[in-house]
Amino acid sequence: MGTALARAWLAAGHPVTVWNRTPARAEALAAEGATVAASAAEAVAAGRLVVACLLDDASVGEALDGADLTGRDLVNLTTGTSAQGRSRATWAQARGARFLDGGIMAVPPMIGAAGSGAYVFYSGSAALFEEHRATLAVPAGTTYVGADPGFAALHDVALLSAMTGMFAGITHAFALIRPEDIAPKDFAPLLVSWLTAMAPMAHQAADQLESGDYGKDVVSNLAMQVAANATLLRTAEEQGVSAELLTPYMDLMERRLADGHGAEGTTGLVDLLAPAQSA
Amino acid sequence: MGTALARAWLAAGHPVTVWNRTPARAEALAAEGATVAASAAEAVAAGRLVVACLLDDASVGEALDGADLTGRDLVNLTTGTSAQGRSRATWAQARGARFLDGGIMAVPPMIGAAGSGAYVFYSGSAALFEEHRATLAVPAGTTYVGADPGFAALHDVALLSAMTGMFAGITHAFALIRPEDIAPKDFAPLLVSWLTAMAPMAHQAADQLESGDYGKDVVSNLAMQVAANATLLRTAEEQGVSAELLTPYMDLMERRLADGHGAEGTTGLVDLLAPAQSA
Ligand SMILES: NC(=O)c1ccc[n+]([C@@H]2O[C@H](COP(=O)([O-])OP(=O)(O)OC[C@H]3O[C@@H](n4cnc5c(N)ncnc54)[C@H](OP(=O)(O)O)[C@@H]3O)[C@@H](O)[C@H]2O)c1
Ligand SMILES: NC(=O)c1ccc[n+]([C@@H]2O[C@H](COP(=O)([O-])OP(=O)(O)OC[C@H]3O[C@@H](n4cnc5c(N)ncnc54)[C@H](OP(=O)(O)O)[C@@H]3O)[C@@H](O)[C@H]2O)c1
Repeated sequence: MGTALARAWLAAGHPVTVWNRTPARAEALAAEGATVAASAAEAVAAGRLVVACLLDDASVGEALDGADLTGRDLVNLTTGTSAQGRSRATWAQARGARFLDGGIMAVPPMIGAAGSGAYVFYSGSAALFEEHRATLAVPAGTTYVGADPGFAALHDVALLSAMTGMFAGITHAFALIRPEDIAPKDFAPLLVSWLTAMAPMAHQAADQLESGDYGKDVVSNLAMQVAANATLLRTAEEQGVSAELLTPYMDLMERRLADGHGAEGTTGLVDLLAPAQSA
Repeated sequence: MGTALARAWLAAGHPVTVWNRTPARAEALAAEGATVAASAAEAVAAGRLVVACLLDDASVGEALDGADLTGRDLVNLTTGTSAQGRSRATWAQARGARFLDGGIMAVPPMIGAAGSGAYVFYSGSAALFEEHRATLAVPAGTTYVGADPGFAALHDVALLSAMTGMFAGITHAFALIRPEDIAPKDFAPLLVSWLTAMAPMAHQAADQLESGDYGKDVVSNLAMQVAANATLLRTAEEQGVSAELLTPYMDLMERRLADGHGAEGTTGLVDLLAPAQSA
């Protein structure tokens, strides 16, 4: 990912100094115009904007341990948790730097590729973000989500978590049609259209979460959906497919129904996952 | 659903005879031009095309038990499993009827509403489908998926199963941001865009399933994804959110990785859900 980012800035004509623990990886960028630093400290000394994209939060602390961050603008594009983003911000500020955390919503081939849809969630120093906005926008789109340095990571992880659920559902769907004379390539477009059409149900959930009225505008209530689950489970059994990816959600639905919320939709399940939240 | 379907045909000027076990529900349609039959048998006698939309497969058998289906075209829009679709087809054919099974991909307010995106999966008699195609297209779009009368139900359930997974992921995502000063309404558009952008990954999975080459065009391999799961789980814990909706899929990923498939993507998980499939 670091290579892809450096390439995008080099291609756009920005002066870039690179450093990597295993020097060969950094040196490969010299041919594209990068200056190769002998140490992380030397790379940090080369310019005001410092971008880190390493394995994990601990490796960022390790790599930058001996560098002088005074007056630097540190942008951390290493994936982490929101708590790591917050503590890394405190760490950077204590060393005299402004700090911006980032969560990259893309794979390397999408970086610097126009129209790829790649973007980065940023949170932390708004001043840093505004000042370097044009530079940050070179490898991927920019979405600033707040001054809290934990918010970029939280948005990143929340989207990846939702995607994990969607992929689990897709896996189950392909397993169901597997034993049949149905071509996966004929089935996939139907699946993609359906998921694309249903994803906007998240807007209704957001609306209900904000109003606190989980019964608002419900067209398919929990009681109906729990009844429909029986058909989903029976079909899985008929097709010889384990329902393990679906049952935890169905169990939550039944718990919520048993709690007397049959006339609502599924938004209230959020409360079962995260009980007793404090704002 | 039966009321919505009848309304759509009435509004389009089709002569419609209706029957419902509780007569009041059918009688409400008389004002819109429907002829109300005193029994299911009488309704069946009124025309060649017979549409059933009842609670479940058993209720279809019960309701049509005394009716003469000879020479009738029976379209069953009752949700069921593919095995039920197949046995209901055999049952109808033994009574002298052609049979088409349907799976409605819509909620009642979408029926007969232009541009709602509502459609019905049909499978079974292609001759029946072709002959009544224009009529069937009145309440919702039509997607014929094969002569096997079990395929409509299977497509229906497969899409609903995938949606269940997606909604589970959405629930987890909202639970993660819940304790924070992030408005669900600001978050939802990011979530919807992301899921919409990632749903087409199903095309790659289909491609890999057809070729049998699960390592084809992999950008984010299983080993990387399993490592990323740790950040998802740690974030859930930090936010006080149960990860129960995500862990079964993550467990499958780890099993597949342990089986030596770290360089592939996640397509191979389909094999773990449905082992030893027979074509
Ligand atoms: N690849 C993606 O699809 C993707 C997508 C979104 C976000 N990200 C995030 O981007 C970051 C980098 O990912 P990647 O795909 O580039 O991973 P990668 O190819 O495994 O690269 C990891 C980098 O971290 C360095 N590193 C590891 N431990 C270190 C330490 N203790 N001190 C200094 N350097 C250390 C490695 O140096 P060596 O070369 O010496 O090993 C290497 O340059 C991760 O946080 C990842 O989650 C990746
Ligand atoms: N609503 C949706 O969002 C939706 C979406 C897609 C598919 N569907 C499917 O459409 C079908 C109908 O759903 P719905 O929403 O209309 O459900 P509903 O409002 O509960 O209606 C069920 C109908 O079945 C009748 N019925 C039940 N048992 C019967 C029996 N033994 N003999 C004769 N009639 C019987 C009921 O008659 P009474 O009036 O006498 O009770 C009623 O007309 C279901 O298979 C459902 O899965 C619904």
